[in-house]
Amino acid sequence: MEMESQSGGEKPAGVFGRAWRRVKALPEGLLAKVVDIARQTRDVATDDPRRVVHSLKAGLALTLVSLLYYLHPLYHNFGVSTMWAVMTVVVVFEFTVGATLGKGLNRALATLLACALGVGAHYLASTTGKICEPLLLGFFVFVQAVASTFIRFFPAVKARYDYGLLIFILTFCLVSISGFRTHEILELAHKRFSTIAIGASVCVIVSIFVCPVWAGEDLHRLVATNLEILANFLEGFGAEYFKSSEEEESSKETKPSMAGYKSVLNSKTTEEALANFARWEPGHGRFKFRHPWKQYLKVGALIRQCACRVEALNGYLNSKIQGPGEMRRIMKGTCTKMSMESGKALKELASSLRNMNHPSSAAKKHMANSKTAAKNLKLLLSSSFWEDVDLLQVIPVAAVASILTEIVVCVENIAESVSELAASAHFKDNAAESPPESSSSSASDSDHVVIEVGEMAAPAAEANQSRCL
Amino acid sequence: MEMESQSGGEKPAGVFGRAWRRVKALPEGLLAKVVDIARQTRDVATDDPRRVVHSLKAGLALTLVSLLYYLHPLYHNFGVSTMWAVMTVVVVFEFTVGATLGKGLNRALATLLACALGVGAHYLASTTGKICEPLLLGFFVFVQAVASTFIRFFPAVKARYDYGLLIFILTFCLVSISGFRTHEILELAHKRFSTIAIGASVCVIVSIFVCPVWAGEDLHRLVATNLEILANFLEGFGAEYFKSSEEEESSKETKPSMAGYKSVLNSKTTEEALANFARWEPGHGRFKFRHPWKQYLKVGALIRQCACRVEALNGYLNSKIQGPGEMRRIMKGTCTKMSMESGKALKELASSLRNMNHPSSAAKKHMANSKTAAKNLKLLLSSSFWEDVDLLQVIPVAAVASILTEIVVCVENIAESVSELAASAHFKDNAAESPPESSSSSASDSDHVVIEVGEMAAPAAEANQSRCL
Repeated sequence: MEMESQSGGEKPAGVFGRAWRRVKALPEGLLAKVVDIARQTRDVATDDPRRVVHSLKAGLALTLVSLLYYLHPLYHNFGVSTMWAVMTVVVVFEFTVGATLGKGLNRALATLLACALGVGAHYLASTTGKICEPLLLGFFVFVQAVASTFIRFFPAVKARYDYGLLIFILTFCLVSISGFRTHEILELAHKRFSTIAIGASVCVIVSIFVCPVWAGEDLHRLVATNLEILANFLEGFGAEYFKSSEEEESSKETKPSMAGYKSVLNSKTTEEALANFARWEPGHGRFKFRHPWKQYLKVGALIRQCACRVEALNGYLNSKIQGPGEMRRIMKGTCTKMSMESGKALKELASSLRNMNHPSSAAKKHMANSKTAAKNLKLLLSSSFWEDVDLLQVIPVAAVASILTEIVVCVENIAESVSELAASAHFKDNAAESPPESSSSSASDSDHVVIEVGEMAAPAAEANQSRCL
Repeated sequence: MEMESQSGGEKPAGVFGRAWRRVKALPEGLLAKVVDIARQTRDVATDDPRRVVHSLKAGLALTLVSLLYYLHPLYHNFGVSTMWAVMTVVVVFEFTVGATLGKGLNRALATLLACALGVGAHYLASTTGKICEPLLLGFFVFVQAVASTFIRFFPAVKARYDYGLLIFILTFCLVSISGFRTHEILELAHKRFSTIAIGASVCVIVSIFVCPVWAGEDLHRLVATNLEILANFLEGFGAEYFKSSEEEESSKETKPSMAGYKSVLNSKTTEEALANFARWEPGHGRFKFRHPWKQYLKVGALIRQCACRVEALNGYLNSKIQGPGEMRRIMKGTCTKMSMESGKALKELASSLRNMNHPSSAAKKHMANSKTAAKNLKLLLSSSFWEDVDLLQVIPVAAVASILTEIVVCVENIAESVSELAASAHFKDNAAESPPESSSSSASDSDHVVIEVGEMAAPAAEANQSRCL
C-alpha cells in the first residue's frame, strides 16, 4: 500500500485510475499483438512465397473434392462415403509433389490390400457362428495391429511405408469389424477404396499440375546452397583472421555473412526427408526418374564434415594474439591462399552442381592452388631459420593452419563425390567444349600444380599426407 | 554362349539343368531372406524392448475400442460413427505418452471447435436459399482451408498444433458440407465429437497406465548419454593419440568405443521432438509438470558444439608424425591431462544429471584440473628454451593442444548450463551434505585451482583468455 501511494503520489487516482489505465492499455496491447502477428505472417510468406501458393492449392483441391457432395449423380453413387474423399485430400495433400505422391500411393494401395484382407477375415469369422464371430474378429484385429505396429519400427519401412501401414491397420479394422454390424461389407470396402482413390487422384493432379514444388529440386538446390555458404565463409576467413587491429575496429559488419554455416550443420534431417520424397517423384525438368538422390546425401554428409571444421575455425576468429612478424607474414600469405582457394573451389563446385555440369576445370585449378599453398607452407616452415620463436604465440596460428589443411582435404573429398554424382546423374560434360581456355590459364600461372584426374580419384593417400603437414 | 559352355563344361546340363539349379536355389534364397528378416526383427526388438510392449499396447487399445461395435447398447448409441473411435485410436496412439496426449488433445479440441464452426457455417449458408447455399459453403471451405494451411507454416504452431489444425480443416469440411445433404447435422457433429473423445481417452489411458514410455524421461536420458559418449572419447583420446608405434600395432580394438560421438552430432531433431512431446506430459516419477524441458535443448546444443570439436580432434588420431622428444613429452603430459580431466568432468556432470543432483564438487575439481593443465602447458611453452624446434612437426600437436583448450572451454559452458538446469528444475543439492569431503580433497591436491561458483558463472571472459592459450 505504501508503494502504491508512492507511485500515485503526484496524482491521487486510486483504484479507479489504475483500472482505467489498464483498460486504456488493453487496445494498445492488442494492437501490438496484431502487429506482431502481421509481421510474422509477412515473414512466413516472404521467406518462401510458395507457401502462399500451397495454401491456395490446398483450398482448390478441397473445393474440387467437395463438388462430390454438391453434384447429385456423384453423391448418389457414394453417399456418406463421400467423406472419405474429403478426408483423403486433407490428409494426403503435402507441400512437395514427392510427399503427396508417396502418401497418396501408400494410402490407396494400403486401402486396397486391407479391404481385401478385411473382407476375407469377415467371411472367415462369419462361418464360425454368432458366439465365436466377435471373439475371432477381435483376435484378428489384435494380431494384425500388433504385427503392423511392430513392423513400423523397421527403419527401411519407417522411411517409406509408415503411412501405408497406418492406413492398413485402420482400414482392416474398419472393414472387418463393420462387417459384424452391416451386411453390405463388400459395398463398404468398394466405396471406401473408390472414394479414397478419387481423393488421392485429386491431390496428385493438383499437386503436379498447379505450380508444382518438387522435393528433388529442393534437395538439389539445398546442397548447392550449403556449398556456397561454406565457400563464403572460407573466402572471407583469411582476411577476417589476419586483419590488423585498426581494420578490426573499422569493420565490424563483415561477420554476419559468415555465420550462415550453422544452418549447414543441422541440415541432415531436411536432406534425408527431401531425398525420401524425391524418390516418389516422376521425371521433371532437368531430373529424370531414378535420379541418384542418394548420392546427394553422401555429398551432404561430406559438406557437414567440412562445416564442422569451419565451426572449429570460427572459434579462432576471436583470438587476438597473432604470431610474430616473419612467421605471421608467411602464415598470412599461405593460410589466406589456402582458405580463399578452397572457398573458390567450393563455389565452382556449387555452380557446376546448380547448372548440372561436370565439375569445371576451374574448380580443379583452385583445388590445386590450395594444395600448392599447403605445400608452400610446409616448405617455408621446414627451412630451419626459426630460432627465436615464441611457441605460445605460434600455437593458435598453427592450429588454424592445421585445420585449413584438413579443410583442403575435405574440399577434395567433396569434389570427388560431386564428380561421382555428375557421372551417375549424367551431367553435361563441357570440358570438351573449352579445353584451350583451361590449359592456357593453368600454364600462365606459374606456381599452380595441375591436378590430374587420377590424383583426384585417390584422395585417401593424399589426405593422409597433407593432413600431417 | 561360349561362356556358358565353358561353365557347363564338366556336366552338359543345358537349359533344363540351369532352370533346375535356379529352382533348387529358390528355396535357399527364400530361406536366406527369411533368416535376414528374422535377424532384423530380433535387432529391432532388442535395440529397444519397449517397442514390443508398444505394439502389444496398440493391439490392446484397438481391441478395447472395437468393443463399441460388439456391445449392442454402445453401438445403438453411435451407429456407423463408431468408426471414428477406431480411427482415432489408430491415428492418435503414439510411442510416448507425450505424443499420444498431444495428439489426443489436439484432435479432441480441434474437433470440438470445428464442429461448432461447421454447424454455424451450415446454418448461415442454409438461410441464403438453395442456389446460394452450395456456393457459400464452397467459399467457406476454400477460405478456411487456405487460412488453416497457411497457419500451419508458422514455426510455433507447427511445433505443437500442426495435427490440431489438420483435424480442424477436416472436421470443418465434413460437418459444413455434410449439412448440405443430411439434415441431422447437429447429431453428426455431436456423434463425431463423442466418438473421437472416446477414442482419444482410450489411447491416453492405455498409454499412461500400461507400461508408460515418457518422452521427458527419454530426453533426460538422451542428454546424459550424449555427455557420457563425449566423456568416453576424451578419456581415451590422450592415450590413443600419444601412444607409441609399438602400442599402435598391438591394440587396434580401442577405437570403436570412441566412434560413438557421430551420433551426438545428429541428435538435434530427436531432442527437439522429445522436448515438444514432454511439454504435454503430466508430472511423472522424478519430473514435475512444467519441468524446464527447454533447458535440456540448450545443454544439448552446447554438447553438439563440443562434439564438433571432438570431430576435429578425431581427424588427428590418424596423423603419425609427432613432435620431437622434449616437446612431445610436455605435450603428452599436459594434453593427456586436459583431455582426461575434461572427460572426467563430463562424466561427473552426466552422472549428476542422471541422478538429478546439482553438479558435484568432483566435476568442478576435474574442470579446475583441466584448466590447470592448460595453464601449465602455457607456462612450459613460454619458458623460452625452444631453439631447435622443427615447426613442421609441431603444428599438428599444436593444433591438438589448441582444440583441447577449446574443449576445456566447451566443458565449462556445458557445466554452467547443467547448473542452470539443476537450479531451474530444483535438483537435489547434496553439496550441503558433504562439504568437508570436497574442501579437503581440493586442499590435499596441491596443484588444483578451486573454481569459485562466481568464476563458473562468468565463463565468457575466461573463455577468451584460455582460447588464446
